[in-house]
Amino acid sequence: MRIDGKREGLLIVLSGPSGCGKGTIVGEMLKRGDCAVSVSATTRDPRPGEVNDVNYHFLKKEQFTQLIAQDRLLEYAQYCDNYYGTLRDEVDALRAEGKHVILEIEVQGAMQIKERCPEAVLVYTLPPSVGELYRRLKKRGTETDEVIEKRIRRAGEELPLADRYDFILFNDVLEDAVADFSSIIRTAYMYPVYHKNQIGEMIEDAKTFHVPDHIEE
Amino acid sequence: MRIDGKREGLLIVLSGPSGCGKGTIVGEMLKRGDCAVSVSATTRDPRPGEVNDVNYHFLKKEQFTQLIAQDRLLEYAQYCDNYYGTLRDEVDALRAEGKHVILEIEVQGAMQIKERCPEAVLVYTLPPSVGELYRRLKKRGTETDEVIEKRIRRAGEELPLADRYDFILFNDVLEDAVADFSSIIRTAYMYPVYHKNQIGEMIEDAKTFHVPDHIEE
Repeated sequence: MRIDGKREGLLIVLSGPSGCGKGTIVGEMLKRGDCAVSVSATTRDPRPGEVNDVNYHFLKKEQFTQLIAQDRLLEYAQYCDNYYGTLRDEVDALRAEGKHVILEIEVQGAMQIKERCPEAVLVYTLPPSVGELYRRLKKRGTETDEVIEKRIRRAGEELPLADRYDFILFNDVLEDAVADFSSIIRTAYMYPVYHKNQIGEMIEDAKTFHVPDHIEE
Repeated sequence: MRIDGKREGLLIVLSGPSGCGKGTIVGEMLKRGDCAVSVSATTRDPRPGEVNDVNYHFLKKEQFTQLIAQDRLLEYAQYCDNYYGTLRDEVDALRAEGKHVILEIEVQGAMQIKERCPEAVLVYTLPPSVGELYRRLKKRGTETDEVIEKRIRRAGEELPLADRYDFILFNDVLEDAVADFSSIIRTAYMYPVYHKNQIGEMIEDAKTFHVPDHIEE
């Protein structure tokens, strides 16, 4: 596998219903050493124990709207009166270092990313079944049955949008899901967009090609 | 990795300049046991040693034009007064058996396939450099320098179309190219198009979900 010049990291978006194991998959991918996550920016107040620039970049509303105006966010969304977004500079810096940046974001943000970075790889994670999703959410034990039921029904409304992603990653056995994710990384580097310069050079070389007088052995 | 119902094989198109090692890669893939090639149909006369239904399906011109009229060809092209094409039934039968069908065809045929089978995976193979392409063609020893020069210049004219393929496969070290090809197969199964039924069922299950009275452990 050859990449134009220095090998830039990929931008990978990971979405999927709450409870399908996105966080666990990301945790496994981070162990590879060539993956990274980007710290999101938000205007909400830090919760106890949350550290600025580690859990989030905690910003004032004016700072956030200024970032929007300057087109310095790869995507952003508003929930419950607070903004959440991904800093373009941070993602670019990690990718320039050769890290694959994994963004765990919602569908709307994923679609914004695809518009701004057509080379981004969009992955939608799914549990093997709705019953299994329920068992995982129940096992987590952080939500009441009522909240779980709401979450699952919301997942059902969002699921038709999975079609707009590049890949569907079923998280049944974690080991397989991680291998699938690694396979996506290897394959995505074969997208033509990553080889434009190299192909351009080959076109020039081929069009002006002359059989050499002397052949190197 | 989960597939809707019985796991149907993929349809993989492999193109690339003459001498870049397509045949060798296909030969290696066939050793996996889950890949197959489709026998092309042609109206040209058999060459000495060529066997009908093995090297080609040798057809009369009227038979071939009838296949076109009946839309029974996945793609076809005309070269030097002869037709060449891929039989849809043959490809479908192999895929139904679970075999990944690899078609080694030219760019025009590849584009026809993409139109008729949007789920087809288009792979464009390239040598690491034009110099290397020359050395490989020279080593093969079947063409004069003049013909090699023509072939390489023609490759330069075709190369801009590589952009329309899904993946660029550089064949530098054969082992890596084969691993990349396998990675494409694993990843292509994650295309949303292969999971429509399963996602459809999950949508229904999720939308009508009720927390069960009794939880199975």
